[in-house]
Amino acid sequence: MADPKRRTLPSWRDDDRLRDECGIFAISGAERAAELAFLGLYSLQHRGQESAGIVAIDGDGAARAHKDMGHVNEAFDDQILEGLPGDFALGHVRYSTAGSSSLRNAQPVLVNYRHGSMALAHNGTLTNATELKDRLSREGAIFQTESDSEVVIHLIARSRREVPDHQVDDALSQLVGAFSLVLAVGRTLYVARDARGFRPLVLGRLGDAVVVASETCALDIIGAKYERDVEPGEVLRIEDGVIQRLRPLEPEPHSPCLFELVYFARPDSRIWGCSVDRARRAFGRQLAREHPVDADCVFAVPDSSNSAALGFSEESGLPFELALIRNHYVGRTFIHPGQAGRDFRVRVKYNPVAELIEGRRVVVIDDSLVRGTTSRGLVSLLREAGAREIHFRVASPPIVAPCYYGIDMPTRKELIGATHTVEQIRDHLGVESLGYLSLDGMRAMVAEYGPFCEACWTGDYPAPLVDLENGAALHRTS
Amino acid sequence: MADPKRRTLPSWRDDDRLRDECGIFAISGAERAAELAFLGLYSLQHRGQESAGIVAIDGDGAARAHKDMGHVNEAFDDQILEGLPGDFALGHVRYSTAGSSSLRNAQPVLVNYRHGSMALAHNGTLTNATELKDRLSREGAIFQTESDSEVVIHLIARSRREVPDHQVDDALSQLVGAFSLVLAVGRTLYVARDARGFRPLVLGRLGDAVVVASETCALDIIGAKYERDVEPGEVLRIEDGVIQRLRPLEPEPHSPCLFELVYFARPDSRIWGCSVDRARRAFGRQLAREHPVDADCVFAVPDSSNSAALGFSEESGLPFELALIRNHYVGRTFIHPGQAGRDFRVRVKYNPVAELIEGRRVVVIDDSLVRGTTSRGLVSLLREAGAREIHFRVASPPIVAPCYYGIDMPTRKELIGATHTVEQIRDHLGVESLGYLSLDGMRAMVAEYGPFCEACWTGDYPAPLVDLENGAALHRTS
Amino acid sequence: MADPKRRTLPSWRDDDRLRDECGIFAISGAERAAELAFLGLYSLQHRGQESAGIVAIDGDGAARAHKDMGHVNEAFDDQILEGLPGDFALGHVRYSTAGSSSLRNAQPVLVNYRHGSMALAHNGTLTNATELKDRLSREGAIFQTESDSEVVIHLIARSRREVPDHQVDDALSQLVGAFSLVLAVGRTLYVARDARGFRPLVLGRLGDAVVVASETCALDIIGAKYERDVEPGEVLRIEDGVIQRLRPLEPEPHSPCLFELVYFARPDSRIWGCSVDRARRAFGRQLAREHPVDADCVFAVPDSSNSAALGFSEESGLPFELALIRNHYVGRTFIHPGQAGRDFRVRVKYNPVAELIEGRRVVVIDDSLVRGTTSRGLVSLLREAGAREIHFRVASPPIVAPCYYGIDMPTRKELIGATHTVEQIRDHLGVESLGYLSLDGMRAMVAEYGPFCEACWTGDYPAPLVDLENGAALHRTS
Amino acid sequence: MADPKRRTLPSWRDDDRLRDECGIFAISGAERAAELAFLGLYSLQHRGQESAGIVAIDGDGAARAHKDMGHVNEAFDDQILEGLPGDFALGHVRYSTAGSSSLRNAQPVLVNYRHGSMALAHNGTLTNATELKDRLSREGAIFQTESDSEVVIHLIARSRREVPDHQVDDALSQLVGAFSLVLAVGRTLYVARDARGFRPLVLGRLGDAVVVASETCALDIIGAKYERDVEPGEVLRIEDGVIQRLRPLEPEPHSPCLFELVYFARPDSRIWGCSVDRARRAFGRQLAREHPVDADCVFAVPDSSNSAALGFSEESGLPFELALIRNHYVGRTFIHPGQAGRDFRVRVKYNPVAELIEGRRVVVIDDSLVRGTTSRGLVSLLREAGAREIHFRVASPPIVAPCYYGIDMPTRKELIGATHTVEQIRDHLGVESLGYLSLDGMRAMVAEYGPFCEACWTGDYPAPLVDLENGAALHRTS
Repeated sequence: MADPKRRTLPSWRDDDRLRDECGIFAISGAERAAELAFLGLYSLQHRGQESAGIVAIDGDGAARAHKDMGHVNEAFDDQILEGLPGDFALGHVRYSTAGSSSLRNAQPVLVNYRHGSMALAHNGTLTNATELKDRLSREGAIFQTESDSEVVIHLIARSRREVPDHQVDDALSQLVGAFSLVLAVGRTLYVARDARGFRPLVLGRLGDAVVVASETCALDIIGAKYERDVEPGEVLRIEDGVIQRLRPLEPEPHSPCLFELVYFARPDSRIWGCSVDRARRAFGRQLAREHPVDADCVFAVPDSSNSAALGFSEESGLPFELALIRNHYVGRTFIHPGQAGRDFRVRVKYNPVAELIEGRRVVVIDDSLVRGTTSRGLVSLLREAGAREIHFRVASPPIVAPCYYGIDMPTRKELIGATHTVEQIRDHLGVESLGYLSLDGMRAMVAEYGPFCEACWTGDYPAPLVDLENGAALHRTS
Repeated sequence: MADPKRRTLPSWRDDDRLRDECGIFAISGAERAAELAFLGLYSLQHRGQESAGIVAIDGDGAARAHKDMGHVNEAFDDQILEGLPGDFALGHVRYSTAGSSSLRNAQPVLVNYRHGSMALAHNGTLTNATELKDRLSREGAIFQTESDSEVVIHLIARSRREVPDHQVDDALSQLVGAFSLVLAVGRTLYVARDARGFRPLVLGRLGDAVVVASETCALDIIGAKYERDVEPGEVLRIEDGVIQRLRPLEPEPHSPCLFELVYFARPDSRIWGCSVDRARRAFGRQLAREHPVDADCVFAVPDSSNSAALGFSEESGLPFELALIRNHYVGRTFIHPGQAGRDFRVRVKYNPVAELIEGRRVVVIDDSLVRGTTSRGLVSLLREAGAREIHFRVASPPIVAPCYYGIDMPTRKELIGATHTVEQIRDHLGVESLGYLSLDGMRAMVAEYGPFCEACWTGDYPAPLVDLENGAALHRTS
Repeated sequence: MADPKRRTLPSWRDDDRLRDECGIFAISGAERAAELAFLGLYSLQHRGQESAGIVAIDGDGAARAHKDMGHVNEAFDDQILEGLPGDFALGHVRYSTAGSSSLRNAQPVLVNYRHGSMALAHNGTLTNATELKDRLSREGAIFQTESDSEVVIHLIARSRREVPDHQVDDALSQLVGAFSLVLAVGRTLYVARDARGFRPLVLGRLGDAVVVASETCALDIIGAKYERDVEPGEVLRIEDGVIQRLRPLEPEPHSPCLFELVYFARPDSRIWGCSVDRARRAFGRQLAREHPVDADCVFAVPDSSNSAALGFSEESGLPFELALIRNHYVGRTFIHPGQAGRDFRVRVKYNPVAELIEGRRVVVIDDSLVRGTTSRGLVSLLREAGAREIHFRVASPPIVAPCYYGIDMPTRKELIGATHTVEQIRDHLGVESLGYLSLDGMRAMVAEYGPFCEACWTGDYPAPLVDLENGAALHRTS
Repeated sequence: MADPKRRTLPSWRDDDRLRDECGIFAISGAERAAELAFLGLYSLQHRGQESAGIVAIDGDGAARAHKDMGHVNEAFDDQILEGLPGDFALGHVRYSTAGSSSLRNAQPVLVNYRHGSMALAHNGTLTNATELKDRLSREGAIFQTESDSEVVIHLIARSRREVPDHQVDDALSQLVGAFSLVLAVGRTLYVARDARGFRPLVLGRLGDAVVVASETCALDIIGAKYERDVEPGEVLRIEDGVIQRLRPLEPEPHSPCLFELVYFARPDSRIWGCSVDRARRAFGRQLAREHPVDADCVFAVPDSSNSAALGFSEESGLPFELALIRNHYVGRTFIHPGQAGRDFRVRVKYNPVAELIEGRRVVVIDDSLVRGTTSRGLVSLLREAGAREIHFRVASPPIVAPCYYGIDMPTRKELIGATHTVEQIRDHLGVESLGYLSLDGMRAMVAEYGPFCEACWTGDYPAPLVDLENGAALHRTS
């Protein structure tokens, strides 16, 4: 077998997909909390597949951590979970930007400071992390990781305020950018979302226990009941089952990430109060209205585009097919066969059902286009399978600007939507027609849940890009 | 991480699914044949997930083997493949019956006999394996594995005939039951299917190289061109790109396995000359005709029932939904959380999209029912998600008899279809209505490709159950 | 970490050492026999470090095997031992010749044949293995391993005799060469040594249980009491604590391996009725008498030459030093540093204590010279450490001929003693003087325990080299 | 195999041995420095066997770290070393106190602070670590590990001084207790020993490159030339091959650890300017003078007591024997056999050569007694082997007080020398006589290299035990 012990992960990952950078989970007041955190993380696996970690805090306030590279069910087993006793736990799954996917950067971060142990799990990206780091460094702070979380931890530890509630407030008020976080100080759980509310965070109950997670699916898997979203700017203090609202952050216009609805979130989750599946269906229907086509059938690039494709089918009346089957054995380790030609990775991941394609005019729905390399490979697979006409439809607008709020995205010049016209992209993909959902059309579908951050489609960034404006490379790991 | 080095696999597997027992692959005449075998096996992964093996034979006839537990991409890596040089390779993926999933039983089997090296990869089950083993044992044979393959190997080695062609003929003519096999004797490839043709086997070309595989998807992934099925009873000899037909096996009425079309084969494969996806769609449509229902939507138990559900939707006019999302991170290692309640495994594997279920009358399509435990768990998930009515539809008839021809199946008394009436099953599942596709209806959909083995639905076994009739426990591993 | 899961071991091993090819162990009639076998193998680790295996047989005669690459305490853990229940167990540790150190060849071999399960662990080399294999192959036998054990197993299984006692007799009487073996047929233990008695085998008791092992140290570690050696040609049948002597093998002049006393056996073992330590001390004393030298001190190449060096010191009156310290962290995996120069491996393994060497005339005692490469490296280390004169003394005669009776040895042309005169070797090593123990002197020291096989020093082979004479490559794995 | 991937190590270790807590290494100015650090650590393996780490710094000042649990040659391989480019490297091997042997605490620590990257490897224990930590915490520092190194790092980072030279000076001047350290700030190497010089540190050259290591054996293995010891209180700054002496620490009376000579250091090293082997020999001779005995032979508890036993033999005229053979396959993972009785661990580790023991009056030399459990087990092994009289001699005085300067030692009440009289210990061991080397006798042997820290034999602690006096638990990990 390939060596699973490497601290740095093997090379293959689909870099034509955007990656959310984290999923977070916290539970306070439930027996065997680490086990529930495990399950929660398991359901949030799609938000981060490179490392997983849990910190558990027992009744005496003793905190224990386990973190490892890999999927949740690789990083943990029964024996490890037994070594994490307590009724209070934080969990984290993580992607990371290239080159830094080491165990060192895995979360939650667990430290000791003057009030005892402190653990933090964080989703998002601070746009002033470098500025804060520089200031903290000048004041004598040392940094052992590359993650924003360590910045937050330092701010709390260095606060002049006397009690943790105020220290947390002090720290959070200095942060700019996107953050949804869960923080344990001793046996107290703090929960916060940035004032614009970029990244999701939901609150639920499992009996008397309080549960916090990136998405509702993490509540569902443990049988917890969804109560409400943590509001943008909200700061909560949770102890012994009591949820207390602390002073909220300075208010800002809300700008939750619309891309969560397009691609990141799990279709059975509710994000921004909206069913993910329902939003995607609506995008698909609107796409059909905006870019109708005379064709024989419609199908998705599975699995993330399935809902949109169903919506397109509904609206257009074209039959919905499952003409591309996704191979789920792909795994992360992979050989690099010299024998296999171009488009090998696409070929390994997607299996076209020739029967449904041959001689037909097909509409292919993808949720978004990043670099366009996968789509191009898919098109050539579909041609080989005998497609007569290929009409490509994208259930979101062209991505023209990188995200600085928690999504791991290529630079602007790698984004095909930023560097090519739609006609150029059509030509590049080699399809008969190409249509993107319009931003207005998209907005209209989810108007009641917005407004949203649409920066990746517009280049208008709701939160100041402090470090970028200072000329610093943006700190990309959440 | 959990220990991946155990020779015996961790415990969790969905035992409410039938398992095909093997996928086989052979390629003769292509550079770096082991690499192509790797890819072929990768695409046949659904046919066997417990071990994988490749034997490669180089230009001097030297044979090298590597076998390991786990998925194909866990069992092999670049370095291992480099250690398997040659232009001729056999490959095998395998399930196994409980208790015997050890590396020892992994295939291909590689031995030396009087004509040099001999390697065999085999899919199917011999119904006279015990009889043959007993006879061979009496004659002094020793058995190092529990697999039928070793029986075949012994028969060849012990044949009184002088040349391999005749030895193979001698051995194959003694086999009763189901077998599709690829056999390397020195640098010669032999390919055979039993006279009734239970298990699939297809023949293709990659340039001048000859490729043989359980399903067409293994040809597709390496870009090989499908030529034809290996015929029931056909015995081929392949060397230097030349395919020669040897004396065929004693003819029998054909009875290819119809269950391959229902569940086992990959939807993008063609089996028995028939598109798997198309067959399943037809089963779904017929199911809608036989068991119509007034409901709001229809959805599949993913992924294997998707095609049937689409067919049901088409015929019934009910909208097709993706209301159950399958979690593909499940993996094989799994913790056993005390915190999670009943139906935990179902809950971890399937995520219901509440939005699409709540308050609605839903039709759930499954391809088949084995024990019924998963279905029952799913029903309670759907109730929790707020389904108003649940109408369960099964796109094949009740399974009433175990398979003895290569499918790993529970005993008769564990088969819910064998021990309960449809009404009892409906009650057990707790659904408003339940309908199975009729055997006649099913047959009609694929009449042009039949006749088929329908033993699991009828108890009529096309090939004699020699060992069973002799009172021996059937030898279940292929 | 380096990957421990490879089925083939990493490359570094000291190929300037001879290797015994196996250690064997059996215990019948003791609770948790596999655990005791583990301990026995642990103490026999020096006889084989590439793989370890145990077969345990429970009260119902069910046999279970576990084998793995690596040291005994890497191949087994508590959990694995728990999976090997029963009061009867066989164990084996193994070296192997280059290229075949795969798990496939690990022992004990466990098979089923007409009388049920049969397991064999074997130390030695059959000199007619190829002849037997050829005959067996012609009769239709298949060979799955390269080990002699499989030949023995086949002979038993193919015997025309009716009961196991006679089958074993039938098989053993066909073997030529060296074998000490333990064999389980059902719940019966058979024990045998070839008629010349090349390889050691001892018999002991642990309460009522019977224990058989390659060396007495394996009895000591489990607290068993040594009873006697299994005699050359003796065949024992052991069941329910009763030891029964079966018909012995055709008698031959005895020729136990004298090299066991020189190097292989553990110094705390008794071999051929003789204390290994005592023999080596006597060799050292005789060496001092034969090759006296005016020097300041004497020390050993640790650890195997320690006893001889003490003997030399005693006789010569030169003070004994521990001037070379052996590094025991060497391990089997090793990097290949470009930075380290010639003699790197010697440097990593032996640490000279400069204090004891600088400016002195030293006598270095080695038990034997194979290729001479290590000795040469050591000499240059000693020069660097400031040795004024180096007098090399070898506590056995020059090796001039390869062993065909169970020792893994280089070919004749790689043996420095076969291709160079003593003066040439002295020059090659770069020492002031070199002296080998004479064969006569050596014999005299252990005369009461002989006669012995001295083939490696004389080229006179006691047992016919059947295969070699037939022109076949000798089958070197035991 | 047992799982090597656990971040926490398996349980068995000989807790009747003292453990040095670290070995350190640094090299500046040599190509492929990480490879040389690997070799250096390899030779320092005896100073720490639970984790190993290397930080390499390339020509651009980029620092890369790899740390893992286990032995040096398990934690690193060729591929990992290739990932650590540069001509400047620090290395560390580490023991740790129970419960904290996690990867998190492995060294070197690598951080970023306001002057760039900083890496530290440290041997010793600060006696005011808790005081410093408390103060740093109050000032807002966070602690991610339990190691003293992080305290040092924080002091440097928080220094008000402007340049690294001064920051280092500032930090070091606040430390109380034992420390030998190597520190990389950017491409500058700082080297320091505490003013009393508890732990060793030597300086050498490999061509133009500067090498620093805990013991001279680490110079020897890479062929570096020993130049001199780093002096107590000395602070060096090394860059581009130039060694510059910075302001030394406030002078204190020197008190290097005498126990290094007794047990910790490798016999081929020179410590405190003294050959370790020579010191031990002298202790053995003095022991013979102080506690003569009428006996038949003398032997050591191998390997650490070998030199002392040789000295005893020399002085007493009793023949030196190798009557106990140490089993070097013990490894760290081990099963816990229910079948093996009392003294099992002793039995597995030491093999008595009965031949040399039976019926004889033996003198056993051990370098020191900690708990006495191993010695007691050994005595019963020797009795079983037939020893007529056993005279136990210890080549150092009774240990009566724990070490707080870098040795991992049991608490006072676990030290047999602190709680029992010599006569009681003799009785406990069950020996005919027992003699410890006197402190005066010991001192006399190494007078020219002293004075030394003798705290463990006297309870007089040279450096203030700040934290202990403040009532804090002493921070035991170095």
